[in-house]
Amino acid sequence: MSCDFLALAQPGVQKLSPYVPGKPVDELARELDLDPLTIVKLASNENPMGPSPKALEAIAAELAELTRYPDGNGFALKSQLAARCAVQTNQITLGNGSNDILELVARAYLAPGLNAVFSEHAFAVYPIATQAVGARCNIVPAKDYGHDLEAMLAAIDADTRVVFIANPNNPTGTWFGPQALAAFLDQVPESVLVVLDEAYIEYAECEELPDGLDYLAKHSNLLVSRTFSKAYGLAGLRVGYGISSAQIADVLNRVRQPFNVNSLAIAAACAALADDSYLQQSRELNDAGMQQLEAGFKALGLEWIASKGNFIAVNVGREGMPVYQGLLREGVIVRPVANYGMPNYLRVSIGLPAENVRFLEALAKVLSA
Amino acid sequence: MSCDFLALAQPGVQKLSPYVPGKPVDELARELDLDPLTIVKLASNENPMGPSPKALEAIAAELAELTRYPDGNGFALKSQLAARCAVQTNQITLGNGSNDILELVARAYLAPGLNAVFSEHAFAVYPIATQAVGARCNIVPAKDYGHDLEAMLAAIDADTRVVFIANPNNPTGTWFGPQALAAFLDQVPESVLVVLDEAYIEYAECEELPDGLDYLAKHSNLLVSRTFSKAYGLAGLRVGYGISSAQIADVLNRVRQPFNVNSLAIAAACAALADDSYLQQSRELNDAGMQQLEAGFKALGLEWIASKGNFIAVNVGREGMPVYQGLLREGVIVRPVANYGMPNYLRVSIGLPAENVRFLEALAKVLSA
Repeated sequence: MSCDFLALAQPGVQKLSPYVPGKPVDELARELDLDPLTIVKLASNENPMGPSPKALEAIAAELAELTRYPDGNGFALKSQLAARCAVQTNQITLGNGSNDILELVARAYLAPGLNAVFSEHAFAVYPIATQAVGARCNIVPAKDYGHDLEAMLAAIDADTRVVFIANPNNPTGTWFGPQALAAFLDQVPESVLVVLDEAYIEYAECEELPDGLDYLAKHSNLLVSRTFSKAYGLAGLRVGYGISSAQIADVLNRVRQPFNVNSLAIAAACAALADDSYLQQSRELNDAGMQQLEAGFKALGLEWIASKGNFIAVNVGREGMPVYQGLLREGVIVRPVANYGMPNYLRVSIGLPAENVRFLEALAKVLSA
Repeated sequence: MSCDFLALAQPGVQKLSPYVPGKPVDELARELDLDPLTIVKLASNENPMGPSPKALEAIAAELAELTRYPDGNGFALKSQLAARCAVQTNQITLGNGSNDILELVARAYLAPGLNAVFSEHAFAVYPIATQAVGARCNIVPAKDYGHDLEAMLAAIDADTRVVFIANPNNPTGTWFGPQALAAFLDQVPESVLVVLDEAYIEYAECEELPDGLDYLAKHSNLLVSRTFSKAYGLAGLRVGYGISSAQIADVLNRVRQPFNVNSLAIAAACAALADDSYLQQSRELNDAGMQQLEAGFKALGLEWIASKGNFIAVNVGREGMPVYQGLLREGVIVRPVANYGMPNYLRVSIGLPAENVRFLEALAKVLSA
């Protein structure tokens, strides 16, 4: 007789529903017997440009050392980030994607009896990381699909240790401005760690959005998390970072796995960080694609949520899941967001111009079928 | 006034001492102003051969897709592992190195009030992973530097949820045989998860050591963890795996980060797994290097612990730390193991023949100084 190792797992773990990723191209190709090259994937907010040539060069230069462990302290990348972000290296925590940073925070600061505050329609990793350590998800209703920062403040109680806020937010693309952030940070109790998730900030750089780093000096309870998976185009390699007080970084660095970031990721991230022209092109491509999709939605009579990310949530006017499945049969992968409490929406990543056309044509076909 | 975010961290986290990795070549080069190319690193049990050309080809073929997230389900690698290990894909958990697997077990099955049993002189990640979730380290004295499996059985109590055993063990290189493992597994309560860490098993394949996979069918509480960081030569990329019952794998897969293994690691591991000649060469080089070091130690009048890994622990007959530091000044990095309760030992990874000579000459010089 064998034991029940689900029942033996920690209570929070038992109740975990795994993260549902965007469907990989190869998986759809296998399932529908399609040529992978004909499939358009606009499902995971990936950079459609292909990797930076400078990142590829940096990877090539590192390959001979693959039998060696990565530098667990990430000296080179931290030095470069510190210079660019105008912080000290001891304020930086490197992560296996910013997902890792979010999880390190949960493992360091949450536990049964405690809670994390975050918004409805927020990134799925917040509830997963919170539940995995047995803490309570203190979820605050959204306002117009965006963060209701005042309601989030009001939701903070004596057992709150962490607040997760995203700017822009995924999957909605909504954002808040500098004044709203400043007012929020001024009112959060200083014993509550505010995780400002800026995974998409490089796409959003404009006067409408604050730069989280500007608030670190005044707020020692702030951690800004960022990633190389989006505008920097390195999702496959897994590298992100958190910037905070040195004390919080010290705690997170104790919790992280000693070699959490692989050596090619470190090398590629260093190169990507220095490749301003790639970043600029990413932004321009994204801005143009956003206009293209908005025009397409308008032509189809569909409503959407204005977005500052590299994706847009569109209201398909009916249950989104069958539309998603219809698009799959057309070889187009987007993201259903019913599990984000948005059953009538699909989240579509901005693609190359031709990919956006493919998607819009497939959407028109599926909706008219 | 800022808050004390160390005091706010979970009690287990507050007490964590970070893992101390082998000193990276670049770090020593910076510190002593040495040419990195002249430094010999025998500190992290890395494969000295350089990466498998087949792994490098697989990486090159994957580079164009770097902007895409990895396949979070690791379909290709799991399929190949399942065939090679004669298990089902749903019995496999992929990890960001086997370090990740060890940690997933701790996070799923340990918590304050519970404990994990492991041996004195065992891998440093066992206590770190255990403490990080607030559980107690139930450490059993070693016998002749190896696991005392009978004493470990006796140490299991009502609060024990996990036993970590390594075969061969790191940093001692000691091992136990098939009968000892069978007797141990027969007596461990079926509600206690036995993690059999086989990070070095590919170096040790011989009749003297059991293959953990042979015991899975009989023992549903067994998890075998393995890595691509050692004999497969991919430490820089971070990929390891656990094989267990499907139920345990399901639990661990809920806890793991959705994209914990990067896409180049998946591609390279698939190629490495199929590259039998690389593995064979790794073993032969290791066997020859082990003999070379043993002969060198004998000539120096030093005692060592017989090892089945790709490393050997040598008793330098005095405090090891100053000898380690003396070797650093000679441009040779080995591993001090005072933090493993072995203050008079150094752990030396098997290098290329010329690297082994460099080390032995430097050791003779430092010891005679």
